[in-house]
Amino acid sequence: MAESQQVLNRSRLDRLRFSFSALHADALLVSHPANIRYLCGFTGSAGLLLIQSSKATLFTDSRYTFQARQEVSSAHISIAKKGLVKAVGEAMRRIGAEAYVAYSASHLTVAQKEALQAAGGGGIRWVKDTSVVERLRAVKDRDEIAIMRESAQLISEVFRRSLPSVKPGISELELAGKIEYIMKQLGASGPSFETIVASGPRTAWAHARPSTKILKKNELVVLDHGTIFRGYCSDLTRTVFLGKIPPKVRRLYDAVLEAQMAAKSSIRPGVTAGEVDAAARGTLRKHKLAQYFTHSTGHGLGLEIHEMPRLGKGEKFVLQEGMVVTVEPGVYVEGVGGIRIEDDVVVNALGMVELTNAPRELIEI
Amino acid sequence: MAESQQVLNRSRLDRLRFSFSALHADALLVSHPANIRYLCGFTGSAGLLLIQSSKATLFTDSRYTFQARQEVSSAHISIAKKGLVKAVGEAMRRIGAEAYVAYSASHLTVAQKEALQAAGGGGIRWVKDTSVVERLRAVKDRDEIAIMRESAQLISEVFRRSLPSVKPGISELELAGKIEYIMKQLGASGPSFETIVASGPRTAWAHARPSTKILKKNELVVLDHGTIFRGYCSDLTRTVFLGKIPPKVRRLYDAVLEAQMAAKSSIRPGVTAGEVDAAARGTLRKHKLAQYFTHSTGHGLGLEIHEMPRLGKGEKFVLQEGMVVTVEPGVYVEGVGGIRIEDDVVVNALGMVELTNAPRELIEI
Repeated sequence: MAESQQVLNRSRLDRLRFSFSALHADALLVSHPANIRYLCGFTGSAGLLLIQSSKATLFTDSRYTFQARQEVSSAHISIAKKGLVKAVGEAMRRIGAEAYVAYSASHLTVAQKEALQAAGGGGIRWVKDTSVVERLRAVKDRDEIAIMRESAQLISEVFRRSLPSVKPGISELELAGKIEYIMKQLGASGPSFETIVASGPRTAWAHARPSTKILKKNELVVLDHGTIFRGYCSDLTRTVFLGKIPPKVRRLYDAVLEAQMAAKSSIRPGVTAGEVDAAARGTLRKHKLAQYFTHSTGHGLGLEIHEMPRLGKGEKFVLQEGMVVTVEPGVYVEGVGGIRIEDDVVVNALGMVELTNAPRELIEI
Repeated sequence: MAESQQVLNRSRLDRLRFSFSALHADALLVSHPANIRYLCGFTGSAGLLLIQSSKATLFTDSRYTFQARQEVSSAHISIAKKGLVKAVGEAMRRIGAEAYVAYSASHLTVAQKEALQAAGGGGIRWVKDTSVVERLRAVKDRDEIAIMRESAQLISEVFRRSLPSVKPGISELELAGKIEYIMKQLGASGPSFETIVASGPRTAWAHARPSTKILKKNELVVLDHGTIFRGYCSDLTRTVFLGKIPPKVRRLYDAVLEAQMAAKSSIRPGVTAGEVDAAARGTLRKHKLAQYFTHSTGHGLGLEIHEMPRLGKGEKFVLQEGMVVTVEPGVYVEGVGGIRIEDDVVVNALGMVELTNAPRELIEI
């Protein structure tokens, strides 16, 4: 691990300690893999990170001995011989007979909590962590933004290189496979979610998974895809038409693009996530299409494909410089089809900057 | 959904009701997606299935209205308007003021349980479900075995078609990408886990993820890959050598293959999972390699890549006809390399039958 990364990790832990003092806890137990990676660099699938005011310990098992030593510098490493949860419970017991431990109720199963409580001798007092790590993660630092820009440009290039394969005769599944292969050829470690290719009537299904359906002439095709690059996700959607688009469908496309631009224009530090959503929704309402916009306008993006903040109706979360979000309004009209246009943007002092750079104007193939 | 599938689902629910009567619960809450799919066919990511003695209800949200109607026939469908957990909690309250509800502590977060408790009016009495659905799922029916055979043959064919690309000069990541592309070309809906390609010294790392490392002459290459086909997983590992294998490495390969054959020979209804593990481990001990075999011999396979039973040291779980497991001993020697050979087999009355059919003898490329 590079030295800069060590410094970075230390400062994340320090920023975290500053926030979690407000929790009045003796320790913070971090169980969510993305949070663990963010705070100490460990990418293995089995790990628990216990943070105290003066030290941090990553607990993992013997499969990850070498990997943990390679990746983790800002925390002690403890290889649990008889089960991870048992080792962490015992460490909690050593903090004190009735230690206050902050944890995330959304990232700990009932079974794990019970096992920790038993191994901890029954005295642990649990405190909700109020998503303290997720809130830190929402604001990206300069290094993270640089990586996310690369990830976003990567998926934009994947889209451009996939276009020659978007043609009548190929199945949705094979096209999705081709797209994911191009991702890896260009250096992504993989897709950030299962690539969506939906064509024809299936575009009206906002969460369609690719099927054996063959792309046909005079159909809409929705491509929703993202890469993971150095751990960070990108997320890009484009909708193309195979042939000459009918005016009725063109109007839908133009309305969605207008809604996307309105949402982007509304983004700046200090506005709420709900105001950005309202900008997109208001534009579609003007076109009498609001009832076909059945999801929220976007979501935070980072080590996970969905993270804080959610750009949804009425959300009070206030945008800050350094947050990275998707902007992805869409309309889904049964019998006509679905259109969605999505970019990744980073909030800056003046407003926002787009990270993805694939063409947004309608492509007719 | 075909009629046979409807009958199948009904009989799964009926078999489940037979088992869960022993739990003395008024209802069983199923929260694990694979269990929900198994019992009612629903494949969406947001769902909770509430099973009572005379009815079953799938709760999902409006994104999945159409999909749920298409996929689910053996349960009522309830589209939750104000949150899934709230709707289910209210349904629990209607069962009775102090209903006994069986649930899986491993598949419910602390936050979900608290929200259900609140929506249920605070009176729900929770009972552990003793993995009742997972134990049902461990024994595959005839239709499941037919699909799993197809999935296993699919990954065997993927391995054969990938071999021409396994050569010096390609990176682990690009080879992994190529393999996953071939999976989709051959009709898989995707990989059942992130494809592992490890070469040279990295083979000694049992859980290596593909890296930018380039394959070189005179190196071992471990390929561990699996497909999802009609929802069911396959899992196949082969280790090949780029060049003429040195006698010392050859001996490792032969010992692992012998251990795999010994484990397979030990499989039949009535033996414990631990006995199968002991057969592999004993063979490696004979070759003085037991200390390099750092994981268990195999695991159950089905809708999930890891399910019951685990073929590990001392496991008491008794094998039954219809169980599908992997058999995958391996040795990992720092400075020499790692070798793993893995097949999927189904337990039958006489012993077992292999589902994967890729060549097991050493391939030198």
